[in-house]
Amino acid sequence: MKALRKEEPNDLKKIVDNVRALGIDMIDEAQSGHPGIVLGAAPILTTLYYNHMTVDTNNDKWLNRDRFVMSAGHGSALLYANLFMAGFDIPFDELKRFRQFSSVTPGHPEVGITSGVDVSTGPLGQGIATSVGLAISECFLRQHFGKNIFDYYTYVLCGDGDLMEGLSYEACSLAGLLGLHKLIVLYDSNDVTLDGALKTSFNENIKERFEAMNWNYLLVNDGENTFDIDDAITKAKNGALPKKPTIIEIKTTIGKYSKNEGTSLVHGSPLDKNDILDIKNKLGVREIPFTISLEAKDNFHNHIEKRNKDKIRVWNEAIGCLDNELLSDLELLKNNKLPIKIKDIYYDYPEDGKDATRNVSGKIINSISKSYPFLIGGCADVSKSTTARINDTLDFSSDTAGGRNINFGIRENAMASIANGMALSNLTPFVSTFFSFSDYLKPGLRMSALMDLPVIYVFTHDSISVGEDGPTHEPVEQLAMLRALPNFDTYRPADANEVIGAYKAVLQLRKPAALVLGRNKVLIQDSTNSGEVIKGAYIIKKEAKKLKAIIIATGEELELAVNVYNALLEKGYGIRLVSMPSMSRFEANPKEYKEEILPSNVKTFVIEASSSLSWYKYVKDDDYLFTVNRFGASGKRGDILKEFGFTVENIVPKIEELLK
Amino acid sequence: MKALRKEEPNDLKKIVDNVRALGIDMIDEAQSGHPGIVLGAAPILTTLYYNHMTVDTNNDKWLNRDRFVMSAGHGSALLYANLFMAGFDIPFDELKRFRQFSSVTPGHPEVGITSGVDVSTGPLGQGIATSVGLAISECFLRQHFGKNIFDYYTYVLCGDGDLMEGLSYEACSLAGLLGLHKLIVLYDSNDVTLDGALKTSFNENIKERFEAMNWNYLLVNDGENTFDIDDAITKAKNGALPKKPTIIEIKTTIGKYSKNEGTSLVHGSPLDKNDILDIKNKLGVREIPFTISLEAKDNFHNHIEKRNKDKIRVWNEAIGCLDNELLSDLELLKNNKLPIKIKDIYYDYPEDGKDATRNVSGKIINSISKSYPFLIGGCADVSKSTTARINDTLDFSSDTAGGRNINFGIRENAMASIANGMALSNLTPFVSTFFSFSDYLKPGLRMSALMDLPVIYVFTHDSISVGEDGPTHEPVEQLAMLRALPNFDTYRPADANEVIGAYKAVLQLRKPAALVLGRNKVLIQDSTNSGEVIKGAYIIKKEAKKLKAIIIATGEELELAVNVYNALLEKGYGIRLVSMPSMSRFEANPKEYKEEILPSNVKTFVIEASSSLSWYKYVKDDDYLFTVNRFGASGKRGDILKEFGFTVENIVPKIEELLK
Repeated sequence: MKALRKEEPNDLKKIVDNVRALGIDMIDEAQSGHPGIVLGAAPILTTLYYNHMTVDTNNDKWLNRDRFVMSAGHGSALLYANLFMAGFDIPFDELKRFRQFSSVTPGHPEVGITSGVDVSTGPLGQGIATSVGLAISECFLRQHFGKNIFDYYTYVLCGDGDLMEGLSYEACSLAGLLGLHKLIVLYDSNDVTLDGALKTSFNENIKERFEAMNWNYLLVNDGENTFDIDDAITKAKNGALPKKPTIIEIKTTIGKYSKNEGTSLVHGSPLDKNDILDIKNKLGVREIPFTISLEAKDNFHNHIEKRNKDKIRVWNEAIGCLDNELLSDLELLKNNKLPIKIKDIYYDYPEDGKDATRNVSGKIINSISKSYPFLIGGCADVSKSTTARINDTLDFSSDTAGGRNINFGIRENAMASIANGMALSNLTPFVSTFFSFSDYLKPGLRMSALMDLPVIYVFTHDSISVGEDGPTHEPVEQLAMLRALPNFDTYRPADANEVIGAYKAVLQLRKPAALVLGRNKVLIQDSTNSGEVIKGAYIIKKEAKKLKAIIIATGEELELAVNVYNALLEKGYGIRLVSMPSMSRFEANPKEYKEEILPSNVKTFVIEASSSLSWYKYVKDDDYLFTVNRFGASGKRGDILKEFGFTVENIVPKIEELLK
Repeated sequence: MKALRKEEPNDLKKIVDNVRALGIDMIDEAQSGHPGIVLGAAPILTTLYYNHMTVDTNNDKWLNRDRFVMSAGHGSALLYANLFMAGFDIPFDELKRFRQFSSVTPGHPEVGITSGVDVSTGPLGQGIATSVGLAISECFLRQHFGKNIFDYYTYVLCGDGDLMEGLSYEACSLAGLLGLHKLIVLYDSNDVTLDGALKTSFNENIKERFEAMNWNYLLVNDGENTFDIDDAITKAKNGALPKKPTIIEIKTTIGKYSKNEGTSLVHGSPLDKNDILDIKNKLGVREIPFTISLEAKDNFHNHIEKRNKDKIRVWNEAIGCLDNELLSDLELLKNNKLPIKIKDIYYDYPEDGKDATRNVSGKIINSISKSYPFLIGGCADVSKSTTARINDTLDFSSDTAGGRNINFGIRENAMASIANGMALSNLTPFVSTFFSFSDYLKPGLRMSALMDLPVIYVFTHDSISVGEDGPTHEPVEQLAMLRALPNFDTYRPADANEVIGAYKAVLQLRKPAALVLGRNKVLIQDSTNSGEVIKGAYIIKKEAKKLKAIIIATGEELELAVNVYNALLEKGYGIRLVSMPSMSRFEANPKEYKEEILPSNVKTFVIEASSSLSWYKYVKDDDYLFTVNRFGASGKRGDILKEFGFTVENIVPKIEELLK
């Protein structure tokens, strides 16, 4: 059948080679970048865009576009060159500013900066894991809106590095379980890594590994052969294979046509000038830097336009046939807004006036989910403990695609990255685990912050008060870790009122955020206020007489702080009690508000069962901190809290001493 | 052959059931713990210890003991009950104090607390990854000392959760590559996780997965059958299988004999009293809590002693035959000390007086390695960039077991945990990657700190000054993350002198530590001093007149700070410049030293291209901080530093303004 081809090969070959030349020119101009993948993997990417990607180059936000994820993010020059040639809105001059400050062609792909870039990538494994979230979203949205509206493929280009990262195993294992058959991974298999030959660090049987994880596996032996690449992609799409995700291993030569092709020398440094000239001569492209064939560019663009014109038209017609409810849902999705009035959050206050903040959180998630169809999430196998689970829904899989509960399994790292993919699809994902294990998902959480995605992280069991499980399960430094992260809000609400407030703030601000919640029942205070949480800190107990000192507390420790406050009040001190559920939100206030809540030159104390590092901004020195600066211990909660000084008996005299 | 058995079955059965009863009594007494694994996996653990573990119960530090790693760390009750019955030095009363504060039976196993516990575990995946480090060490030490001295097996008990964690894939993939055939994983395969049936979150073909990673796979269909378990372990050991690590999947029933056996109900909560009685009746053990069969205990202990007596004798004889050099090496290893005089560190100062701290680090590693045979380490595939690689050695594998360079591959998370296993074997491991990717290995790094292991983390490319690679590769919050971690020293040396000083400090203190290093060439200052680094901070430029202000700087920014100092000096200000390579070391000083370096009530400024969060302890407010509180950007280093305010032109006027 090799004779019957839908495309003239020379067209595509010429495009591929222009992409290659452009990519190495960009790297040469920047004197920085990764030429190996440009030369080696250009045929893969260009074939994909030429013959398969369903995209609208005039509207790179089109909801039903196929997604492409450059998991090997160091291949940014290849991606930009390819997108430019394909007709995406990337100014030619910006290619010359590759890797320069404020260009739209940064060192690694960044979503929101470059037309046609669907996901920010760079840290290996992130792209492939995020793609699983994109594929879940497609499946979920297809079920919700119908396949006339959502029916896209998610393609990934990954390298050996992605497949070595544990993150990729987690994500791919889950993709296999869920049967995400519209996820297609193109594996640029070149047998070389930065440190040398691949075999010195990696010798898995990729076929067996992926088949063991319920994937289809296809092999393309010659990565220069665009026909074979095309055939494999077609096969992965056309339904002949079992309904599973597919990985296509494509054997390539890193740095193809360079004098150092096939070695790690071409991976991460610019090529020398003579090598570039030789390569261009071999490719048959013009030697002068940044001279491309306009014919090739036009062919590429026109071919993509021609292929997709009807699909886009049909899609727009299908929109016209949606009923009002779905149309309204689609508008919400498109505008990436929330439908619910935030006051609709419902919480049934318990009769005994006590609830664990983790439990409140679960109830609120279930309340929000009723009026907001795009809240979807799950847990890393501790949902009975975190309570972060939508109860009246199915477990999500490709067969139960309307399910809004995702059993992520014990795969914290992938959970975060998958949530990023869901947020990139304009869903509002929540994910949960124990706070101590936020360490496991920090790489993905950082990408939420970097991409500014409204992922809700629900972390429970948030301090030494976990008790019996001991130091491995007792976070100490994690609050500082999150508070130091740019563009991320961390909330540690004190009781039910503040949990409600935290969810309201998160939904309103639509920023990446974590709710850090307690395991134990705490009294719901009269003086806490959900409406104040968005301000980050507020007074919950005013000073009864002239202000002598301020106590700041967060989370479960607020209950203790109230007792400390009462003891000091009884002793006649003018104390103010401030609850600070979110330091980042507090810092975002105007100076006046901050000064009003925490006036300068007033002795200020902090009670928080976590590292001191977060708190020096607000206190004079260590004497004013009731915090935790060593690892926790296994024991009954009360014993542990006592041992670590979290008692009225320990704190009150120390404060009194400093107020003398 | 089933007729020929080396042991009377009833002996072992009785021990198993006593272990079970003891374990559930412990959990019942604590009203906290995980009975499911106690009842389900007791036959595995007890069979292993009864027939296989080469241990000296009187000397749990014996260097050539088999290692056992309870990767499913929530099975601590099972482990303690088993170790107690086996004759390890665990007081009976401490079993009754399971999970209580200050007991030797904490909620998850902690090395150094409980006799017979080789590794701290709890966070899933950690145990199995650490075991790879133990197995690497055995292989390395066997090569160094001969197989009469080192010849131990590393056994792991893991559950489904361990195998879902990406960490375990990374570690097992590397174990397969390295051919660690003395690593034997016992997989407690019970088809249930905390959130319910395993199939809702995990459906991999374990056999195929592990074979794809170059492991042997064995299956035991009936986890109650100690004969079959024994046979499988024997088969994994006796050389009949290919020289690969082996996983033995053992099908068990979680919570066996409980009314809720086989369900997630028995996973993580104490059983009810009637259930306990019923179980004990089924097991044929006495109902009264904590009544064990002394006969069973004695049988267990005696059997282990008898099996191992000769091995221990032969080993001691072999020690006597070692030559002096090896004997001296063995003493060093046993005492976990360093042989080298720290002054032996050699560094060839470059003629131009400039060097990147990452490069200095590589040279020092190579200097130390010459006189210290137990320095061994590697990199997550960026060794050409981190330069952390011992050059005059082979790449380690089971075939080249004397090699001291480990190609960890792009497996940061496993790299840290494997290093923990090597440090637990008294080697001194170093591991390296880019600082931004410290996120990936935080879970393992935390375990280094928790176990107090002298792992040296070499993190390079440490700030926005990475430049072109952009925000994914530019750490911002990671210094705060590490500085908030208990029992961990973070060093950010400014130049070659301070890198030397940091290595000296790390080797002398033998504590878990990170060296956070720059990518760029920096001037080696006249005033920096390697001997001062261990103090954490010291004055590098004294005030020329009455002290008006102090500038603290770290790492690459010290060079800028010197320029700022000089500019202010010229303007006539009395400025002191303090280098602070390690905040934790500085804080460990007596108050007097701290006051001497940083006197109170002197205006203090900080220049560090990292999150502010670390620094409020030393400054009045944000105006005094020249730090980074947003994500980095892609661009030329100079452009980025300018954009982020790291120039003399930006800083000097701002300081002047505040000194008015």
